[in-house]
Parts: sequence; C-alpha cells; structure tokens
Amino acid sequence: MRAPSIGNIMSLIYILDLCAVGVCAITATLEAQRRELDLFGVATIAVIAGIGGGTVRDILLGRLPVYWIHDPIYVVVGVAAAMLTFYMERKVSIPKNFFLLPDAIGLALFTVIGTSIAMSLQVHWFIAALMGVITGVFGGVIRDILCNEVPLIFRTDIYATAALVGALLLIALDHFGMAHNLALIAAMLVIVIIRLAAIRWHIHLPRFRAYP
Amino acid sequence: MRAPSIGNIMSLIYILDLCAVGVCAITATLEAQRRELDLFGVATIAVIAGIGGGTVRDILLGRLPVYWIHDPIYVVVGVAAAMLTFYMERKVSIPKNFFLLPDAIGLALFTVIGTSIAMSLQVHWFIAALMGVITGVFGGVIRDILCNEVPLIFRTDIYATAALVGALLLIALDHFGMAHNLALIAAMLVIVIIRLAAIRWHIHLPRFRAYP
Amino acid sequence: MRAPSIGNIMSLIYILDLCAVGVCAITATLEAQRRELDLFGVATIAVIAGIGGGTVRDILLGRLPVYWIHDPIYVVVGVAAAMLTFYMERKVSIPKNFFLLPDAIGLALFTVIGTSIAMSLQVHWFIAALMGVITGVFGGVIRDILCNEVPLIFRTDIYATAALVGALLLIALDHFGMAHNLALIAAMLVIVIIRLAAIRWHIHLPRFRAYP
Repeated sequence: MRAPSIGNIMSLIYILDLCAVGVCAITATLEAQRRELDLFGVATIAVIAGIGGGTVRDILLGRLPVYWIHDPIYVVVGVAAAMLTFYMERKVSIPKNFFLLPDAIGLALFTVIGTSIAMSLQVHWFIAALMGVITGVFGGVIRDILCNEVPLIFRTDIYATAALVGALLLIALDHFGMAHNLALIAAMLVIVIIRLAAIRWHIHLPRFRAYP
Repeated sequence: MRAPSIGNIMSLIYILDLCAVGVCAITATLEAQRRELDLFGVATIAVIAGIGGGTVRDILLGRLPVYWIHDPIYVVVGVAAAMLTFYMERKVSIPKNFFLLPDAIGLALFTVIGTSIAMSLQVHWFIAALMGVITGVFGGVIRDILCNEVPLIFRTDIYATAALVGALLLIALDHFGMAHNLALIAAMLVIVIIRLAAIRWHIHLPRFRAYP
Repeated sequence: MRAPSIGNIMSLIYILDLCAVGVCAITATLEAQRRELDLFGVATIAVIAGIGGGTVRDILLGRLPVYWIHDPIYVVVGVAAAMLTFYMERKVSIPKNFFLLPDAIGLALFTVIGTSIAMSLQVHWFIAALMGVITGVFGGVIRDILCNEVPLIFRTDIYATAALVGALLLIALDHFGMAHNLALIAAMLVIVIIRLAAIRWHIHLPRFRAYP
C-alpha cells in the first residue's frame, strides 16, 4: 500500500473543508429555528457560521482578499445546506444529536487548517495556535452575535479548549519533525475525542459564581 | 442632446453616494430614538450605518485602507446628518414614511456601487453580486447589532433580496454588452421598484414557523 | 538633566501600552462577572477588550497583519490579567473605583498611540483623530457586543469625547511644531483630566428624551 501523496491529502482536506462549512450551515439553520428569521436571514447566518472563522483569520493575518472571494463554492455550499435544511426541517424532525460528531469533525478540521495556514506564515507558535482556535470557533461566535445571544462557546462546554489543545499538539508534532499530514490527523483525532468526551461527561471549565 | 460623459456619471454617483450615506445616517438616528443613547452614540451608530456596508466590502476584498480613510467627507456627512436629525427631531416630528423612497434609492445606489467595484476586480459574478448585497445591507446589520437587536433585514421584508436581484441584473446586462452607466440605472430602478412594491404589498420571504 | 531620547519614550510607551491592555483585561473580567461565562469566555472577552481597538484601527488602515500577530506578548498579558482577576476575585473583593484612574490612563494611551500611527500614514487630520478615538474605545465596544449589551460608551459619560478632544489637541500641537513626545504627554493629560472630571461631576452629552 502506498502512502497518500500530499496532493491527495490536499484534495481530501479541501473536500472535508467544504463538508465542514455545510455542517456548520446546517447546525446554524437548526439554531436559527428559535428566532423569527426569514429565508434570507437564515441563509446569511448559516453561511457566516460556516465561513466566518476563516474570514476573521484571513483579515487578521492580512491574507486578502479573504479565501472565499476567489472560490465561491464555499458560499454556494453554505447557502445550499441552509436552504435544504430550511425546507427539510418542516417535513422531518432532525435530532440535534445527529450532528454532534460531524460538528466535532468540523471543529477539528477548521482548527488544523487555520493553524497550518498561520504556521506557513512563520508567525509565533502561540499566535498560530490562536489562529487555529479563531478559525475553529469564530464562525459560531459571529452566528450567536447576529442572533443576539452571548456566544455559546463563552458559556458552555469544552469547545474552544479542545481546539486549543489540538492546535498546540499539531505545532508540537510539527516541531518534533513528524510528517505534516500525520500530525494533522493526530491533532484532529485529539480534538474530536476531547470534544465528544466533554459532551459525554459534561466536563466544563470553571465558571464565575461556581463557588457558593 | 448629448449623452452624459463617464466623468459626469461618476460625479453624479459620488454625490448620490454621499446623499445615501446621509439618508442612512438620518434613518439610523430616528431608529436610535428608542434607545437611551447620547449624542456620541447616535452619531457613531449613524455613521456606521452609512459607511459600514462599503467598509465590510473593502475589508473582504482587501481594498485597504477602506474607502473613507482618504476621503473624510463621508464621515463628515454622516455626523452632520445625525446631529441635524438629533436636534430637529425635538422640534418637528419626522414621519418615518418620509424616508422610504430615499432609503430605497440609497439601497439601490450602494448595491450597484459595490457590485461595480467587485466586478472591476475580476471576481466571480456570484461573489460580485454578494459584494453588492453586502455593500447595500451590512451598514444596517452593524447598526442593529450595535443597538443590540437581531438585524432587521434577517426578519422582514424584501430588502436584501431586492439588492440581490438588482446586482444580478447589473452583471447580466454588463455581460450582454450594455453600456455600464445604462446598466447601472436599470439595476437601480429594479431595486427601488422591488423594494417599494414589497413595502406596499407586504411581500416577504418564507419564514420559519410560517406553516401552522 | 537630559531630555529623554526618542528611544526611551518609545520603550516607555510600549510598556505603558502593555499595562493598558492589562487594565482593560482586568476591568473586562470584572464586567463579565455579571454574566455566566466560563474561564475561556472571560479570557477571550478580556483579551478582545484590550487589543480590539488597535485591531480595528489596523484593519481599517490596512496595516496587516494586525499589530499583535508579530508580538504575542499583548495576548499573553491580556490572558494573564484575566486569569489572575478571575481567581483573585473569588478571594478579595476589588472595588471598581480602584480602576478608574488606570482605565483613564489606558484610554489616553490607546488614543494617542492610535492618533500617532494614523498621523504617520499621512491621512487627513480628521481621520487621524477618528483612528485615535477608535483605538481608545472600540475594545470596549466589542466587549459589550460580545456580552450582548448596547455598548456602554454609546449611553453614558464623556468617554469617547475625552478621547476626541485629546486626539485633536495632539494633532494641533504637532501642527504648530511642538515636539511629538511633549505633545503626547499634553494630550494624555487632557484626556485623563476630562475623563476624571466627567466621572466626578457626572457630566454627560445630551441624550434623546432629555427634554421632558
């Protein structure tokens, strides 16, 4: 069996990236249900949830125009996923748990992509990890701001923390000379496992007023 | 009668653009009435409502510094319109309907300007249309976020949709070889008509929970 | 006694700038108390409160990557200040008044730094003043948006106004040939004095519905 070439890995990441945008758009659409939004509002919020993290990363790093300007397929996938969910949701009830695994994979993917991009720009490792976390979670932050809520990730669960651990692991493995594609996969696995474990056993960070 | 030169058209668009910023600032000031804001807050939100859409467009496209950095008149017009409205409003009651037509013209103008700018950068037509819509509506989105509300355009009326149809029309007319200034006027007319028709007959996009 | 060299002034400004980021992070953490945020949420909001103003300034001016990408110490200071406050706050009660003076100094510092940077880019003086105000106050604006509140500075006190007066003074003194470091100190003093006077005597700008 031959090892996959970098080209194949890149195509695979591209396709997974599009899937992650779609999953983000779907969960954002289901979230938006509770609000009185029209079709345009839902589609906009869904697309922003999908591409917002990478957009903020690109702006902060000065990689302009932002990545989806020259590749409209990202926006198309987001809009299509939102509209499908919008109409499907009236016919079949989609259990929210259904998306927990895809959502965790999406978080992992966005995080390692963001970290890799920042690493390729030779920034400090701490900033590279931060860019990974921003890519992973800021789509959801902007989604919640548009829905007029305190962003969910500031309140619950190990979400950004999983992204941070994965990003740091990726940087460490890369530093110690592991092949980049293997490091990517290891980091993603760790993010998915931490995320799912946090959901399963209700692990969360300390909160204000946690003490009586 | 001689056809207007491109130069004249450009000056006209510049003046109309400033007027649109002013109208946006006025309606934002009237909106802000319901909030307990001071003069600075009102002026800031009014200016952001006027120039926010073009600013987001410029950042996403990488046209930096953003357009009003080298032309402070935009900010000045926004502040002046806001302060005038702030003090006028205490003396005379301005009916909100008074601004429906100027507001629709402003939407049309911002949209065609944003679309034209994106087209000149050779991006995909779908992205060009998106940039037109963003230029047209994002000032209002940021205004509503600052006022701590779910953005109005996500909830009601055909607003962004009118902008989208106009932007696509502009691109299509341009593609089929129509003179750019004629295409601009046609697209603006269509946006204004759709917008006013939607207000007049309460047309809106499908919403969640629309079915009983 | 020898006058301080420009180099010393720059090092001093750098250190004061880091202190201002820390103070902003501390006050943001105390603010966040009233919300049910976890440690990650608090740290994120605190860092954004500290570096948000300069980040918005850099994006608008096209100074990318933004300033903290190549100097991670800013983010580290913000995170450290937030975590320290988070745990300290459970043991000792920090009176909010304690930070009024540091907060005013931070506002003054951010404002003169932002104005100086914009002036060095040869923009119009009005835009330079605006960039100073944005650097001074937008960290707080983004903090309040993330906490789902109408930004405080739009509602109360002379905060942005103090920044504006100081920025304009800095530009005027520079225009009339005063040494830049003296002008910096004069402008900062004026900002701190106006800010503290406004708090002491409850001075505020006219508000909507101020008339009975």
